[in-house]
Amino acid sequence: MRQPMRHALSATLAACVLALSGCATSGAPATAVETRSTQELLDASTPADWRTPDPANLLYMDLAGGRVVIELAPAFAPEHVANIRTLARGGFWNGLTLYRSQDNFVVQFGDITEEGVPGKPIGSARAKLPAEFDRASAGLAFHALPDADGWSAQAGFVDGFPAARDDRKGAGRTWLAHCYGTLGAGRDMAPDSSNGTELYIVTGQSPRQLDRNITTVGRVLQGMDLLSVLPRGTGPLGFYEDPKQRTPIRRIRLASEVPANERTPLQVLRTDTPLFDAVVESRRNRRDDWYVRPAGHIDLCNISVPVRTPPAG
Amino acid sequence: MRQPMRHALSATLAACVLALSGCATSGAPATAVETRSTQELLDASTPADWRTPDPANLLYMDLAGGRVVIELAPAFAPEHVANIRTLARGGFWNGLTLYRSQDNFVVQFGDITEEGVPGKPIGSARAKLPAEFDRASAGLAFHALPDADGWSAQAGFVDGFPAARDDRKGAGRTWLAHCYGTLGAGRDMAPDSSNGTELYIVTGQSPRQLDRNITTVGRVLQGMDLLSVLPRGTGPLGFYEDPKQRTPIRRIRLASEVPANERTPLQVLRTDTPLFDAVVESRRNRRDDWYVRPAGHIDLCNISVPVRTPPAG
Repeated sequence: MRQPMRHALSATLAACVLALSGCATSGAPATAVETRSTQELLDASTPADWRTPDPANLLYMDLAGGRVVIELAPAFAPEHVANIRTLARGGFWNGLTLYRSQDNFVVQFGDITEEGVPGKPIGSARAKLPAEFDRASAGLAFHALPDADGWSAQAGFVDGFPAARDDRKGAGRTWLAHCYGTLGAGRDMAPDSSNGTELYIVTGQSPRQLDRNITTVGRVLQGMDLLSVLPRGTGPLGFYEDPKQRTPIRRIRLASEVPANERTPLQVLRTDTPLFDAVVESRRNRRDDWYVRPAGHIDLCNISVPVRTPPAG
Repeated sequence: MRQPMRHALSATLAACVLALSGCATSGAPATAVETRSTQELLDASTPADWRTPDPANLLYMDLAGGRVVIELAPAFAPEHVANIRTLARGGFWNGLTLYRSQDNFVVQFGDITEEGVPGKPIGSARAKLPAEFDRASAGLAFHALPDADGWSAQAGFVDGFPAARDDRKGAGRTWLAHCYGTLGAGRDMAPDSSNGTELYIVTGQSPRQLDRNITTVGRVLQGMDLLSVLPRGTGPLGFYEDPKQRTPIRRIRLASEVPANERTPLQVLRTDTPLFDAVVESRRNRRDDWYVRPAGHIDLCNISVPVRTPPAG
């Protein structure tokens, strides 16, 4: 059977938990870092190439179909992340729904209560937060990509999160970029109208036009395949017209509040290492034999930072 | 309720058949072309701004859930398109399946018959075709975007199809780009191993690394929401492990072979007009009040060329 490419997610490959582009094994000999495929590079990784996210930064969204694991980014949106932690501890989202799925764009979840109707109480969480669209570049370890894109002065990664920055003319601002799997906080017209109760996750072509127009708070590490297949809503903006079409959320908890034996062990490839640079290069110029013309380029949102189940032992 | 943006597909808006980004109506006054929103521009369009695709270039894929409408691009892959027409006339795909869905990448359909087992007969279609990865730029009306991307010397549109070209140093080559909804012909290791029987459609972040590595043959005009929600296959590359998970294809026909009263009337916004330039500008710099920081940029694959049901009368 013919395939569009050797863009593989091997069923036997524990290292490729997410749909990492290019988990295919190349037949080419590994003569130098630059000629190894992504999978060969990951196979050669050491424990120090991986980091284990802080359980206080992980959200588990449990659906009937399985668990979505989200990593929060307090370095980018500290007030929103603190509020989301409070909301999760209070069980805010338990029993609420995913109430919107717009094709090639986002899914959204939270409290769909209509205007004028009292919403679900938010307990000790704050109703009002400042906008956190970007932050000072100072104090962030930004690992730049070799390629530019048209959306920002520079693109790269901060602790595994796709990010962009503008340090021209002393601007000195950095922000989380809208890529597949990015988690953001829905807002109304006022920039400071988000409080983390209504959250969206990008399921379509990277909507980078949203960057610096809304507060981004994290990214999905595992379980995108549970969200990306939700039927598209037929109402405006992909909202479901019939409440029965909404997908129930059993519960959303912080991993740190979950008993150890119920946690989902995950590790994320570090993005500040020579190995990561080699992985990026292996995506910029595909080395497996299928490709006849390596692109010599990659966009920020084409890079899926590898996530794995930690090896046994 | 809070929204990630005014990225609207109005239920009452016949002009927005596809999930066009930015069908929201702006509250801003229309003082000049450059300040109008996408929707205001479309509302002001004239019949001459739209084209009706040739029925000989339209494929109807009928699924249990509805119809997917695909426009073929004979200008880019004449031999593949001719073969696909022959295959459709012979009913080749009728009763076959969508047998692969890889998250954030592609769905694929055709004859999943395994290696070594005789496949479904292809009738008078050709088993062997040349690779048609790109073509000469000469003779194509390429309408360039104002923005560059890192994937090609120039990005733009040809008759509504996202395209890229390299005319530097006399290269003079143009190709259909891999964006959301692009249709391509799966191949094996040999560049000339595709014949159009196995086709894939992009459902994830634009995999531009495939450009000029495989033959692209068209794009989906309507019905992406039927394909993008197919459960992801859990086998390698998103192939379904259980044949029962495959989605049956009732039939694929050329619109020109379908009785007029069973056709799906569609028009596509022309991409070689001042109106289209204004639409692009309205996407580069969002004018509705929700945005506090227009991007001043857009990538090729962020532009969904509007498709509509022709207005009555």
